[in-house]
Amino acid sequence: MDYVSGKTQKQTLEISDILAGGYEGKDITMNGAIHTIRDMGDVAFIILRKREGLVQAVYERGGKQGQHLPDLKNLKEASTVEVSGTVKKEERVPNGFELRLKEMRILSEPKAPMPIPINKWKLDTTLETKLNLRPISLRNVKERAKFKIQEGLVRGFRDYLFRQGFTEIHTPKIGAKGAEGGANIFKLDYFHRPAILEQSPQFYKQMMVGVFDRVFEAAPVFRAEKHNTKRHLNEYTSLDFEMGYIDSFQDIMEMETGFLQYTMDLLQKEYERELNILDITLPRTEQIPQVRFDEAKRLVSEKYDRSIRNPYDLEPEEEALIGQYFKEEYDADFVFVTHYPSKKRPFYAMDDPADPTFTLSFDLLFGGLEVTTGGQRIHDLDMLEKKIEARGMTDEGMEHYLMIFKHGMPPHGGLGIGLERLTMKLLGEENVRETTLFPRDLGRLEP
Amino acid sequence: MDYVSGKTQKQTLEISDILAGGYEGKDITMNGAIHTIRDMGDVAFIILRKREGLVQAVYERGGKQGQHLPDLKNLKEASTVEVSGTVKKEERVPNGFELRLKEMRILSEPKAPMPIPINKWKLDTTLETKLNLRPISLRNVKERAKFKIQEGLVRGFRDYLFRQGFTEIHTPKIGAKGAEGGANIFKLDYFHRPAILEQSPQFYKQMMVGVFDRVFEAAPVFRAEKHNTKRHLNEYTSLDFEMGYIDSFQDIMEMETGFLQYTMDLLQKEYERELNILDITLPRTEQIPQVRFDEAKRLVSEKYDRSIRNPYDLEPEEEALIGQYFKEEYDADFVFVTHYPSKKRPFYAMDDPADPTFTLSFDLLFGGLEVTTGGQRIHDLDMLEKKIEARGMTDEGMEHYLMIFKHGMPPHGGLGIGLERLTMKLLGEENVRETTLFPRDLGRLEP
Repeated sequence: MDYVSGKTQKQTLEISDILAGGYEGKDITMNGAIHTIRDMGDVAFIILRKREGLVQAVYERGGKQGQHLPDLKNLKEASTVEVSGTVKKEERVPNGFELRLKEMRILSEPKAPMPIPINKWKLDTTLETKLNLRPISLRNVKERAKFKIQEGLVRGFRDYLFRQGFTEIHTPKIGAKGAEGGANIFKLDYFHRPAILEQSPQFYKQMMVGVFDRVFEAAPVFRAEKHNTKRHLNEYTSLDFEMGYIDSFQDIMEMETGFLQYTMDLLQKEYERELNILDITLPRTEQIPQVRFDEAKRLVSEKYDRSIRNPYDLEPEEEALIGQYFKEEYDADFVFVTHYPSKKRPFYAMDDPADPTFTLSFDLLFGGLEVTTGGQRIHDLDMLEKKIEARGMTDEGMEHYLMIFKHGMPPHGGLGIGLERLTMKLLGEENVRETTLFPRDLGRLEP
Repeated sequence: MDYVSGKTQKQTLEISDILAGGYEGKDITMNGAIHTIRDMGDVAFIILRKREGLVQAVYERGGKQGQHLPDLKNLKEASTVEVSGTVKKEERVPNGFELRLKEMRILSEPKAPMPIPINKWKLDTTLETKLNLRPISLRNVKERAKFKIQEGLVRGFRDYLFRQGFTEIHTPKIGAKGAEGGANIFKLDYFHRPAILEQSPQFYKQMMVGVFDRVFEAAPVFRAEKHNTKRHLNEYTSLDFEMGYIDSFQDIMEMETGFLQYTMDLLQKEYERELNILDITLPRTEQIPQVRFDEAKRLVSEKYDRSIRNPYDLEPEEEALIGQYFKEEYDADFVFVTHYPSKKRPFYAMDDPADPTFTLSFDLLFGGLEVTTGGQRIHDLDMLEKKIEARGMTDEGMEHYLMIFKHGMPPHGGLGIGLERLTMKLLGEENVRETTLFPRDLGRLEP
């Protein structure tokens, strides 16, 4: 009987293996895609693209090494290869070493030249072209680095919450009714029954607070909003958590701040390479100012000489100015805006007992853009039913949600973070599509 | 200015804090839901349910402690409370300590009695009832333990793959066309354009192999299959990975075996509590036998005296018998069945050059049930286009997918693991709905 042991590993090395030391002057085997070929006559530099970066492989013409090397004329950019050669220190190239080639085996060859020069440091094309050619444009070293940073954000989210006693959950994305109602919901036919795509795991994560006290989920959400802006997507990844036994919504903001601090540390430690490639300075998270919604509007209106048009709404321009204000006055990249007006929040938001026009809720602004919405939820069934009624809503289709309050729920709250927006602001991008692998918007369903 | 520092922590303790030691005889504060009340006259035992388990709180009637305690008559099961009291060793109760109550503050109260006795050790109800009351039935300690184990499986998957140089990706779930075509696709209206829900991240993860060499995703997939069986769901969580620069599909099976070994270790170390609650013995993963599809059919047909009806298909009963065969003959819980017939695999599967009737692919059976499908993919554009043509398919709508082969792809392959099925077999459950938080099937869209 043949067995799979889980132990067999390939003999090819990665960049980090070599950087770990002990290979200087030794022969090794590596694989990669040919990123660039620079033919200098006697010698050619073949740059290999590997997941951890670029490696310079030196092809010496006519040397005795040449016997196991294919003719340079036959080598193409975007071919994938397995090469063997000697590791030599070389301070002037990426990663500080090069490979003097002895053997090369071609694993695959492209059928056509690259449609865009992905081996340039910066892709000098429009966003539209980048997105149309996404499977190829992402091979650019700078482009792909954005999504390693994004990986780090999700890792930080999970790792931090695991340490804080949260349980990861997987809730369904097809449902019978939207958590927050409204027209902005994608509808589908589910075996001849009407169904929707969930715009948030809100109801499910609240249900699960009754089970595990603290839960989180990092998963796609779907919004059929007809916005065509630089900051809206119709499908995005939401980092959601919900926690029970809170004293106030302050606990939620503390937890988010802890997550941000942990994650910036993680990025600094484990994603230094990508931070350097993208030339990113991480934002300050030691302490994040918090300001009431009405107070924030007042501050901005005074400082920037702007009249308050609607005291119960925050326009995108106002959000941006709040960001600017706190950057200028407190050198703060983030600011928590608290106590949003009740009419701008969903029915399950807990109203402020001191003034029920406002809620015990918050947004987190990052560089003047909302990247999180959160707050305390109503946990008392009577209070919830009154609010549903006062809004002229019906509780039809909400039986399973209301069930949890009927049978006891602790005080609780939570938040949802837009992953692509958080990445966008962290990387100083202007369009959320820059930090979405395959964006879905009003015009884009492919690739 | 008020600041959020991320440092403020609640003063309430969790079970693990107390088990870490140093609290014997000390006064502490804790919160939880009242799971059961056992009134013994002079004394009452109030069992608190917390995320890490149960805690016995001792309510002494008439003691001087009683002054800050609510009247026992007013205490309800399913209320949530914050209590203070003295920690005492008590070997006979869960976790080996109890709390002598001094104070109790009621945080919330239920409006109605529990519809099922969730505080029983085993919920003695039908699956149908459990699912109808899912938000409540999951509060049962045994029920929720299943989903902690499921969490561990996903954690193991990610942690192991991170260590193996994989990058986590987030691919869209709304698309223009299904990766594998066919009728079993949910359709939706996307701003007046036809769209579908992805039944697999297949095309996207292959695209991303060209970018990061090794990628994974743990996310929902959607299948509009009209199966009504114990092992099918219409939405499930798929653990997908795809890796480049493979020598053969053997590399994929090695990686999966490594994942299983790592994860069983993780469960043993960090999920011992839940393994004990569910009385689970973890399966053996040191070495997993592998057998060809045709050979497996022959072995089973001989041993169990069963004629081979269709040499190119595997019936569920045959799968179960293969599982039985390898358990009996090799004491193996898992078995890799390799070289599936080409006609049963999607067009992108790499055919076996030695006999193109079969593919370089595999399924992993666990206790006789398919929990993984994987294999090597075609990476040559000509080969792929020929196969598309031979199947009478069109490459319409596949431009972005074919683009990656046009511009060079390494040899690669990958797999998809059904999380709920893996959990089901691990826990010895008979129905995949037992290990799905909120199942979606032909009849169920709620909760």
